[in-house]
Amino acid sequence: MDQAELDRIQHSFEAQSMMHTLGAELASVRTANVTIKAPILPGSRQQQGFAHAGLTFAIGDSAAGYAALTTLPRDREVVTAEMKINLLAPALGDYLIAKGRIIKAGRQLIVVAADVYAVTGTHERHIAALQGTMVPVPATPQSPA
Amino acid sequence: MDQAELDRIQHSFEAQSMMHTLGAELASVRTANVTIKAPILPGSRQQQGFAHAGLTFAIGDSAAGYAALTTLPRDREVVTAEMKINLLAPALGDYLIAKGRIIKAGRQLIVVAADVYAVTGTHERHIAALQGTMVPVPATPQSPA
Amino acid sequence: MDQAELDRIQHSFEAQSMMHTLGAELASVRTANVTIKAPILPGSRQQQGFAHAGLTFAIGDSAAGYAALTTLPRDREVVTAEMKINLLAPALGDYLIAKGRIIKAGRQLIVVAADVYAVTGTHERHIAALQGTMVPVPATPQSPA
Amino acid sequence: MDQAELDRIQHSFEAQSMMHTLGAELASVRTANVTIKAPILPGSRQQQGFAHAGLTFAIGDSAAGYAALTTLPRDREVVTAEMKINLLAPALGDYLIAKGRIIKAGRQLIVVAADVYAVTGTHERHIAALQGTMVPVPATPQSPA
Repeated sequence: MDQAELDRIQHSFEAQSMMHTLGAELASVRTANVTIKAPILPGSRQQQGFAHAGLTFAIGDSAAGYAALTTLPRDREVVTAEMKINLLAPALGDYLIAKGRIIKAGRQLIVVAADVYAVTGTHERHIAALQGTMVPVPATPQSPA
Repeated sequence: MDQAELDRIQHSFEAQSMMHTLGAELASVRTANVTIKAPILPGSRQQQGFAHAGLTFAIGDSAAGYAALTTLPRDREVVTAEMKINLLAPALGDYLIAKGRIIKAGRQLIVVAADVYAVTGTHERHIAALQGTMVPVPATPQSPA
Repeated sequence: MDQAELDRIQHSFEAQSMMHTLGAELASVRTANVTIKAPILPGSRQQQGFAHAGLTFAIGDSAAGYAALTTLPRDREVVTAEMKINLLAPALGDYLIAKGRIIKAGRQLIVVAADVYAVTGTHERHIAALQGTMVPVPATPQSPA
Repeated sequence: MDQAELDRIQHSFEAQSMMHTLGAELASVRTANVTIKAPILPGSRQQQGFAHAGLTFAIGDSAAGYAALTTLPRDREVVTAEMKINLLAPALGDYLIAKGRIIKAGRQLIVVAADVYAVTGTHERHIAALQGTMVPVPATPQSPA
């Protein structure tokens, strides 16, 4: 990917205020593979003090969506049609990372997946697996993508 | 449900800092049916300005989880095992409401659903349908549930 | 629905040899609502003697797909993009019925659901809930739809 | 896995009459990884002549379930709690194979996945991705497992 492609992903990501609220950032962007990193902020927890499933879902869904976007022309962006998440272990650690990838890129639908890990020191614990469908749509004029 | 039951749900909800971050509140609690209301805060949006799927998921998942919790004894709480969300329309409106319900309460697993609506004036637009599985677990001592 | 519409659904159903193998038949066809009935044949079982999840899935998926098809023009048919099934109880009874419906009919995607019941005498036991996505595609020349 | 372990999986598989109806057979059994092979029988098709999603689902679900079963003691078997399938391409080819694997083996729940391929000559086309949850249950006396 060239710098213009990377900038496009970065601009779209920065336009998602939810990612800012959650403290999430793009950690790695390659064609069909995007990694997002997020802290477990004091304001991102469920009743037991673990990361809320909403955080895990949000970064997994976004990582999968941006993985799809890396393969599309610049006049397109993606929306999530549907997403399934299996939660595997409590989300407890120094921070979370979500690794998104493409399973199958079709013309109308892009089937994607993401794995989310809770990182403690150098240990990555697999805490969630997501599988879903992204739909390419025309990029809106007001959208930075 | 008596007041002690309602208080238990309210205390658990308040212990979820993510719900506070998203501005979400319990709108209605009845046995097997819980409604959560949330504004579309400036910090809860995706790149087009609509509510982020992470918000829609978070309140749908929580509404479904609390619907399950209303049917369990006080020494139990629930965790989400898996959840599927179909996004039906852009999340645009005055605020969102998520209505959670129980499909089937088993001993080991509680199958749940939630519908999320974007409300504009008196119009409710159906924006998401969720279906998933909650697992009852022992309430942790530090948990207010 | 007029007779031509009903015939179209019936012809498409009869062209699915899997439905014939499973002994399934269309029990009811109304706009956006289709019911399929199937026996639990000796050849449709899992290792405990209950109906196989493959049978429950097949009739649930087909009921949902035909519910979608009732709303489309005659030059279109549907394919399943994705389907989620939660199995609620063992599939044991005189026969199964699957009731398909539309959650949201969009232009590109039709979000659907189905509930499957095991019927014993006059008692319907809810054994599965399905939620998924159908995609309209051009009807193929060789297709009876 | 020793021969007794392999026999147990084989016996359970043979007790599933649906697998026999579909012409499916166990192609490979290793700990946490099971492959099932099935022809696209004349009686296993949808209205366009491709393999029915019910066949794809049935062998994917079974491959995932037996992958889970390989890790359990002999007094346990598994049932599917829920399964999500994304269909990626038409199921057209010489035969299908489903490769099941374990994502996370917990005490109460085993999260599994399967990929289904349509094989033509030496070419494997990825036609479906499944992700779901298996629940260990006591083996029934009448069950060969």
